[in-house]
Amino acid sequence: MTATRQLGERAQAMLDALAALTDEPGRLTRLYLSPAHAKAVDLVARWMTEIGLEVSVDALGTVRGHRKAGKAGVGGNKRLLIGSHIDTVVNAGRYDGMLGVVAGILALQELAAREVALPFGVDVLAFGDEEGVRFPTSLASSSAVAGIFPSTALDARDADGVSLRQALTDFGCEPDASQAAAYAPDDVLGYLEVHIEQGPVLEIEGKALGVVTSIAGQSRFNVLVTGEAGHAGTVPMTLRRDALAASAEMMAAIEDVALAGRAHEMVATVGRLTVEPGAINVIPNRVRFTLDLRAESDAPRAAATEEIKARCRAIAERRHVGFSMDRFYDNATTPCAPRLQDAFAGAIEALGHPTRRLTSGAGHDGHAIKALTDVGMLFVRCRGGISHNPAEFATVDDMGLAVEALIKTIGKLADQTDVSEE
Amino acid sequence: MTATRQLGERAQAMLDALAALTDEPGRLTRLYLSPAHAKAVDLVARWMTEIGLEVSVDALGTVRGHRKAGKAGVGGNKRLLIGSHIDTVVNAGRYDGMLGVVAGILALQELAAREVALPFGVDVLAFGDEEGVRFPTSLASSSAVAGIFPSTALDARDADGVSLRQALTDFGCEPDASQAAAYAPDDVLGYLEVHIEQGPVLEIEGKALGVVTSIAGQSRFNVLVTGEAGHAGTVPMTLRRDALAASAEMMAAIEDVALAGRAHEMVATVGRLTVEPGAINVIPNRVRFTLDLRAESDAPRAAATEEIKARCRAIAERRHVGFSMDRFYDNATTPCAPRLQDAFAGAIEALGHPTRRLTSGAGHDGHAIKALTDVGMLFVRCRGGISHNPAEFATVDDMGLAVEALIKTIGKLADQTDVSEE
Repeated sequence: MTATRQLGERAQAMLDALAALTDEPGRLTRLYLSPAHAKAVDLVARWMTEIGLEVSVDALGTVRGHRKAGKAGVGGNKRLLIGSHIDTVVNAGRYDGMLGVVAGILALQELAAREVALPFGVDVLAFGDEEGVRFPTSLASSSAVAGIFPSTALDARDADGVSLRQALTDFGCEPDASQAAAYAPDDVLGYLEVHIEQGPVLEIEGKALGVVTSIAGQSRFNVLVTGEAGHAGTVPMTLRRDALAASAEMMAAIEDVALAGRAHEMVATVGRLTVEPGAINVIPNRVRFTLDLRAESDAPRAAATEEIKARCRAIAERRHVGFSMDRFYDNATTPCAPRLQDAFAGAIEALGHPTRRLTSGAGHDGHAIKALTDVGMLFVRCRGGISHNPAEFATVDDMGLAVEALIKTIGKLADQTDVSEE
Repeated sequence: MTATRQLGERAQAMLDALAALTDEPGRLTRLYLSPAHAKAVDLVARWMTEIGLEVSVDALGTVRGHRKAGKAGVGGNKRLLIGSHIDTVVNAGRYDGMLGVVAGILALQELAAREVALPFGVDVLAFGDEEGVRFPTSLASSSAVAGIFPSTALDARDADGVSLRQALTDFGCEPDASQAAAYAPDDVLGYLEVHIEQGPVLEIEGKALGVVTSIAGQSRFNVLVTGEAGHAGTVPMTLRRDALAASAEMMAAIEDVALAGRAHEMVATVGRLTVEPGAINVIPNRVRFTLDLRAESDAPRAAATEEIKARCRAIAERRHVGFSMDRFYDNATTPCAPRLQDAFAGAIEALGHPTRRLTSGAGHDGHAIKALTDVGMLFVRCRGGISHNPAEFATVDDMGLAVEALIKTIGKLADQTDVSEE
């Protein structure tokens, strides 16, 4: 077995151990600050401790494992951040997020085993709120690390009415210390994240790894459509104000707008929808649904938002139903730093592989971290482009190669730091 | 105050007392075999006892109040049935169903007060499962009275997994005695029901009461659409198998078919819809929704069912999603007996009002009772045609007139019985 493949095997074993920590028997669901998340924090902290890192958990539940700089010099007070997240969607796969945390830990373990001294410290970070499933917030934990977490977000509540503040307190965190979770920008050298692609490009092109050029911007909305309840048997079709029939027409319009924008890699998703009163024989009077809208750059996403609003408003007027569409989350496109893209590309080429640069359609913690420091991302091929699904899969070989590329990238950054500081 | 208006006032007071019995604070929700239903059974039984009826509760929870025949003769062993239901939809009004029970009780009370002897017995029935909200059955209680209740339906389960059998047992009933709840057809003279119209016709035409010519047939379906979950940011629109986007297109097709059939008073309603996994950033892979389809006669409903199936199947094939549409309830059109229509019409005319005959778009317990005996229905004008809604409303004057018309109708049937038996 090659050393690279061995790294991949170790990554797989760690991912399997994490995947066993779930809040739902029979499938992997690990929402932010849940009991399974607490177990995952403990496991990651144990792994970090075992390889000699100094471990702490911050106010938002992010696990941090610190490796001290191994060389004297000006750069010795600075830190390179390597991270990803350990929360999941409902019925998730085992690679999304977790691979980046595991890759960081394995890279530091290997650097220690190879007795490589670095002119800067390294912090491996395991964020807890990347998927945004539980609370109507997103990237809370990486925002705190980046110093842009708004303390008002502590009042956000989950579907059971539990506030983020309460959930953090129950988790053993001190939510009111959220501002202290931020790094000082001058202390940070950059942020690296390894992640599965979650799309089909690398697989179609037969490449194991890709360098991310930017993370697509995204907007999320809550849509509310209000009509009038009535008896399903006696109100003629032409006199109805059916909130669900109106929502169906709106969903068709949303899909239409996204299809028209596909040259901009636009995607629109209605992922959650509830109907009231929800009885077989009653015309629905209240429908709520979410809209998630993304594109490779900001202008077409803004234009699509306006077009969707206008078309839905016209549908609502024609059907005499109420309509509101409130943006509760918006994130501009995050360009990846050219120097970090080049470091990843150089590492991949040094391993004998071609470089493929591509945009990330999925959002990542880098969206928040860009407020703190430069962001660089390495994509790992995944089967069928599938993620957020138990069928999510990356090969041991590809994962081993990713860890090796991360090690080489850290080495390249060290070389640059040595040169600049000497 | 006129005697008619006084009857209406008494009806309103009884309806208000029933409306206070709810399973949800702040709104009226009284599902079959719920705690609030148990309280309603007790209240109705008390009212029946107070006016001298013999009260019992059958295997399916129907309250029966029996008044003995007041004259000797062949007809004296026979019974006229008068009834309606005391279960409600979620967030219901206070007239739908309850008015028919209250009208029956008040009519018998008045007949006793007026010392009218009848040549037949009368049973007032308060059914418990007309709305079909809790269990995937419908008209369970009136089906048992009619002798067509299939005991396999006892295995039906509600959303919490509770079987009908268990719920009946917990309610104090003996579900395995369901067959004993049936009347012998030879013992029954007919079935009368007073009910709000639940549609706008009488109000638009300025008439207080209407005679029902038939109860529209109806079909109910469970539709399941299965696609593939995936990341909302990375799966291009053209590669998606989104179960909710497909369902939206199907709902538009369903609405379209119903609009095309409006000359047949066709109505189609999707009242319940659930999305899995139901996360903002995950493409839905599983949508279930219900379809309720009705028309004034059977042939156009059957044709619409086939067209909806064909159009949904085509949508599913084009989108590469799974589709199934299973009929779980079907009821043919129920014609009302001409002799009972004429008795109601004669009573209305004797009260100085014009006769308006019309179809019922809503289903009623008569759908089941037709298997046992002739069915006659009297409609009461309701405001805005609104029902299944807290805004449901009928005036005291219209309700008083309905009770008086019911009393006169019973009298006419008594006269006919006297003639035929002498």
